[in-house]
Amino acid sequence: MLTNTRTIRVEWGDCDPAGIVFYPRYFEMFEICIHSLVERATGMTKFQLTKKYGFVGFPVVQARAQFMAPATYGDEVVAETTITEFRRSSFDVVHRVHNGEKLAVEGFETRVWVGRHPDDPERLKAVAIPDEVIAKFKQG
Amino acid sequence: MLTNTRTIRVEWGDCDPAGIVFYPRYFEMFEICIHSLVERATGMTKFQLTKKYGFVGFPVVQARAQFMAPATYGDEVVAETTITEFRRSSFDVVHRVHNGEKLAVEGFETRVWVGRHPDDPERLKAVAIPDEVIAKFKQG
Amino acid sequence: MLTNTRTIRVEWGDCDPAGIVFYPRYFEMFEICIHSLVERATGMTKFQLTKKYGFVGFPVVQARAQFMAPATYGDEVVAETTITEFRRSSFDVVHRVHNGEKLAVEGFETRVWVGRHPDDPERLKAVAIPDEVIAKFKQG
Amino acid sequence: MLTNTRTIRVEWGDCDPAGIVFYPRYFEMFEICIHSLVERATGMTKFQLTKKYGFVGFPVVQARAQFMAPATYGDEVVAETTITEFRRSSFDVVHRVHNGEKLAVEGFETRVWVGRHPDDPERLKAVAIPDEVIAKFKQG
Repeated sequence: MLTNTRTIRVEWGDCDPAGIVFYPRYFEMFEICIHSLVERATGMTKFQLTKKYGFVGFPVVQARAQFMAPATYGDEVVAETTITEFRRSSFDVVHRVHNGEKLAVEGFETRVWVGRHPDDPERLKAVAIPDEVIAKFKQG
Repeated sequence: MLTNTRTIRVEWGDCDPAGIVFYPRYFEMFEICIHSLVERATGMTKFQLTKKYGFVGFPVVQARAQFMAPATYGDEVVAETTITEFRRSSFDVVHRVHNGEKLAVEGFETRVWVGRHPDDPERLKAVAIPDEVIAKFKQG
Repeated sequence: MLTNTRTIRVEWGDCDPAGIVFYPRYFEMFEICIHSLVERATGMTKFQLTKKYGFVGFPVVQARAQFMAPATYGDEVVAETTITEFRRSSFDVVHRVHNGEKLAVEGFETRVWVGRHPDDPERLKAVAIPDEVIAKFKQG
Repeated sequence: MLTNTRTIRVEWGDCDPAGIVFYPRYFEMFEICIHSLVERATGMTKFQLTKKYGFVGFPVVQARAQFMAPATYGDEVVAETTITEFRRSSFDVVHRVHNGEKLAVEGFETRVWVGRHPDDPERLKAVAIPDEVIAKFKQG
């Protein structure tokens, strides 16, 4: 599977009074990283992708992270993101964030490919991920 | 003019490594406070209001703040928000944030009432603020 | 165990272009909610508590959430927070966030009680949670 | 004066339900940009700088921005940051954020160089900016 690597600088506003990254910021990083991976795999932003394939998005239904080592203002952390499994209409993502030599954070997300419900456009409904999209992630 | 008062607790995640509120958070507070004022004046959320009057929103075109005294985690600050002037399609907002006895922050925003452009729904266009909306803020 | 209930209004800035709460914001909520619970149980803010007991904080080492139903701007969600288990120097927290009748989000955190390392004040070290602190959460 | 240019990608989590950057995020960008400028001018992060010169930081006392054109998810905006004036213990910063050809946002900050008060280490006090620091920004 394709892995995308992204360097993210820890900014002043990411850190809390203890001087370390406020932990919800790592989930914001995960969101940035999955978008980077999707763009690298497909050559399209999420907006372009949703237009082309007529779906709405890939919201998170489950997220989890383990925090092993802290990161502080000025650190440049390196996040590696990959999709570990595709199912019919959902997929699993792993993010490994290194701070120098150390694995600082490991994150896991399950995301669902959703479209408008045919009976009610206000509701969302899981839809099948197109095979040609999946193929692009498997090329990596 | 109607003034709305809102107490906001300074949370851990609002503070930076210096232990005080990270200043952009005050602009987030201002956004919360103008929504509170609008709801109190009109009895409607912004979504309900935009549906009733067929407009899109009231984005900020200018924002300004002076930071006079710091606030830290656990403080309960009190924000007073009022509209100081209505023009045809824009209005000025003032937010005064007290921390205990002290005026901690004073903020100013100019916001524009916008709708869809008649020739191009992708573009926005300033539109007149309905008189009956303005009247609701003047009752206070 | 003591359960703390907190109503949180979903603000404009909490929501993403899909119009629903950007998921990392729920982890910010969890941080707010554990502070509320700690204050209710002990009658002290985290700052006061760390001073009294000579520790540094209770950072998260593992966090997890399941997102079952969306919440959108203007919703008032109700979060119930409780500690489900205390160990020597760590504890588990559960947060159940309801949006109206629906359980919207369920969150789990493991937090560690940390102090300064005796040999190196720059490093942190898990320390025993005082029995009298634990007792305050068990009273609820 | 030295000008620092930084490209910032607008992420999903930076945007609100209207699909455009939530305006307080621009002030977060300004904070990132001033840190970049300081590092480029001095070759030190803010932490290193505060240690070397024995001061605490350079908090914002006044901030202002004009929002001329929107930016949306996926845009890469380019921020140019420069210091326009140094006074004894404060300085003015200008940030110009372009989105493609358009000047999207113009921001202004006044920041104060602060140290610990000699009589009370809990209080802060404006202190003179070292001449050799100022010289580094004038080289640009």
